[in-house]
Amino acid sequence: MPDKILDDISHRRYNPLRGSWLLVSPHRTKRPWQGQQEAPGIITLPEYDPKCYLCPRNPRAQGDTNPDYDHTFVFVNDYSAVKEQQQDYEAEPSSNDLSSLLLRAEGVKGKCFVLTFSPKHNITLADMSAEETLPIIETWTRIYATHLSPTNPLSQVAAKLELLSRPAPPESVVPPPSQQLRYMQIFENKGAAMGCSNPHPHCQVWTTSTLPEEPGAEIVQMTKYRAENGGRHLLGDYVKLEMEKQERIVYQNESFLVVCPWWAIWPFEVMIIAKRHVRALVDLTEQERLDYADSIQEVTRRYDNLFETSFPYSSGLHQAPLDGTQEEIENSWFHMHFYPPLLRSATVRKFLVGYELMAEPQRDITPEQAAARLRGCGGELYRNKLQ
Amino acid sequence: MPDKILDDISHRRYNPLRGSWLLVSPHRTKRPWQGQQEAPGIITLPEYDPKCYLCPRNPRAQGDTNPDYDHTFVFVNDYSAVKEQQQDYEAEPSSNDLSSLLLRAEGVKGKCFVLTFSPKHNITLADMSAEETLPIIETWTRIYATHLSPTNPLSQVAAKLELLSRPAPPESVVPPPSQQLRYMQIFENKGAAMGCSNPHPHCQVWTTSTLPEEPGAEIVQMTKYRAENGGRHLLGDYVKLEMEKQERIVYQNESFLVVCPWWAIWPFEVMIIAKRHVRALVDLTEQERLDYADSIQEVTRRYDNLFETSFPYSSGLHQAPLDGTQEEIENSWFHMHFYPPLLRSATVRKFLVGYELMAEPQRDITPEQAAARLRGCGGELYRNKLQ
Ligand SMILES: O=P(O)(O)O[C@H]1O[C@H](CO)[C@@H](O)[C@H](O)[C@H]1O
Ligand SMILES: O=P(O)(O)O[C@H]1O[C@H](CO)[C@@H](O)[C@H](O)[C@H]1O
Repeated sequence: MPDKILDDISHRRYNPLRGSWLLVSPHRTKRPWQGQQEAPGIITLPEYDPKCYLCPRNPRAQGDTNPDYDHTFVFVNDYSAVKEQQQDYEAEPSSNDLSSLLLRAEGVKGKCFVLTFSPKHNITLADMSAEETLPIIETWTRIYATHLSPTNPLSQVAAKLELLSRPAPPESVVPPPSQQLRYMQIFENKGAAMGCSNPHPHCQVWTTSTLPEEPGAEIVQMTKYRAENGGRHLLGDYVKLEMEKQERIVYQNESFLVVCPWWAIWPFEVMIIAKRHVRALVDLTEQERLDYADSIQEVTRRYDNLFETSFPYSSGLHQAPLDGTQEEIENSWFHMHFYPPLLRSATVRKFLVGYELMAEPQRDITPEQAAARLRGCGGELYRNKLQ
Repeated sequence: MPDKILDDISHRRYNPLRGSWLLVSPHRTKRPWQGQQEAPGIITLPEYDPKCYLCPRNPRAQGDTNPDYDHTFVFVNDYSAVKEQQQDYEAEPSSNDLSSLLLRAEGVKGKCFVLTFSPKHNITLADMSAEETLPIIETWTRIYATHLSPTNPLSQVAAKLELLSRPAPPESVVPPPSQQLRYMQIFENKGAAMGCSNPHPHCQVWTTSTLPEEPGAEIVQMTKYRAENGGRHLLGDYVKLEMEKQERIVYQNESFLVVCPWWAIWPFEVMIIAKRHVRALVDLTEQERLDYADSIQEVTRRYDNLFETSFPYSSGLHQAPLDGTQEEIENSWFHMHFYPPLLRSATVRKFLVGYELMAEPQRDITPEQAAARLRGCGGELYRNKLQ
């Protein structure tokens, strides 16, 4: 057990991976809720929707037609947040040097992809077996490898990868970028509550010429930790500690540990962490890719079972930059975050609003309580039992 | 005009007040929206609701009865996130020193108040005149002064404040804390979209024994700026620059500037900034309190006029800590943030989800475009014109 007293008193916990604190108020779960209710996750959709821009054979917004794909399908986002071609930006030379201090900007180039998980419109990761999830991880690995800088030591690893010597379905392949980019963020917004506008199972891949804030902060923290702790890795030590403590583990297999981290902000926040030092997707062996698929399956199925609903979340992979210093690449440790908003039921969510935005993130149930509930939710997917 | 090119290309902007970057994708507003729709703000409520726990004379959850108040009314939150009395926490002395690196926690004491803005159930700040808003600012000032540390130089300022020598209505007064606290966060969650569970106009005041992350980060940045720029204040310089540039100003009066900051994340994010060096509420003169009320009035009315709806937002005041070093107090500069989620209409919001949570905040319309729209929305409140 963790210090028992933390189940009763308000306290702050430190997130060593981001270098920031959050407030935990365990007694606050007793609060009644009279506010906004979420619409429960839709579960009756057709397997094929002629109006969906992600279903096979359908036309898309800008005129292209989707191929008749079998597993995954990748294309450039029709409304990309960043583009490969745009004018270069240089700040106006200003007579006023306050501008250069207080109105700072820099151009960002890059490319945004959309990647479907399945041709079926009406399924989610929770409905797919580990074997069915594997092609998604393979496609992520291919896209990541295609974008690696030739000077990144990981590109030598990629060159030797058996997976990448196998021919790939053409609809899962992307061309190399027209210029070297710095970082690739793979993420999924699932459910209307997380801003997803199309239930067809899919994720996004945004690549940018800049290193974004969150992975940037994590790399700084991981680098500092190694320097201060005899070269040991922050997440390597964390995996070891959680396996000893047995307080926040949701699930594990040979290659991955699934925990509600000590510093979780969202009520049922989860991290999937590689047990050994994996820097990026291309470091994974074939067995590890399958174990990773199995971990994703265990998380998403438990989520759906928890409140017997199609559980909304945003998830994202953090791994080594496409281009960076040797140190940045070496200090990276592959992991995946899941941030789900639901708190008490299929319709009552946690709002991260006033205090959270102005002062500090705040949570009610403890990560230990959340982990215990998710541990208890394994087994068959609730909707299959109902059939 | 700002560098015109920033209206067309994807770029990052730097927030010097927090020390972080965000991604701006101006062309992305052309994206169609097929996702979740918000319920439009409710505007037909009774002036008195017998079931509301904030209306005068009504019973509350834990048995107390509200007084028959005229302006504001303050009470301790029945479900406070922090409390004055709780067991002290000291981490278990651990044989394993990984715990002390990776499982860090500290106890947090404090007190949470709820503060109503008016006895009327069916109004909002947008419906109130500056004169009607003034009692709220006076109550904030009283509560802040009551919590100041005797060693804080601001407590001498408070001691001389004419306002505080005037008798106050008993329902707007709070007792001094039983122990010295570090910070007071005043914030409002308005609207169901921002997690507000009761439309009766009110805000919250959370005081804590710790300095929360956001004001903590701002103080670090403001301190650094002064040290590097000959003792000039970051927000003082910023006010000066924005008044010169005239690109992001929404409104101003003698004492306050209202801008969509260069680094705004939320589509119509706004900051109210004191024009002179005001460290905290107790530094404001009587005229400045009225000008502050006027600024709040101008922001909230313009928000409602923008999409002709009761506009949801979270807002919060940042000011000097209750207790802190001389430097922290001297480097503080009074300002207020408004974070509203709506993007395109009364029912279409911006989601800060996958990419934003995993990588970096992202916005579509530029702050310059947002400021121009809010500048054009002044004048009478739209719902009064309809009557
Ligand atoms: O205190 P309330 O109004 O019950 O709750 C609201 O504001 C709090 C402070 O921002 C949040 O932690 C809650 O998630 C939100 O629903
Ligand atoms: O790209 P989509 O799915 O259209 O949009 C969704 O994800 C983006 C990336 O997290 C967000 O910026 C949008 O607010 C959200 O609605």
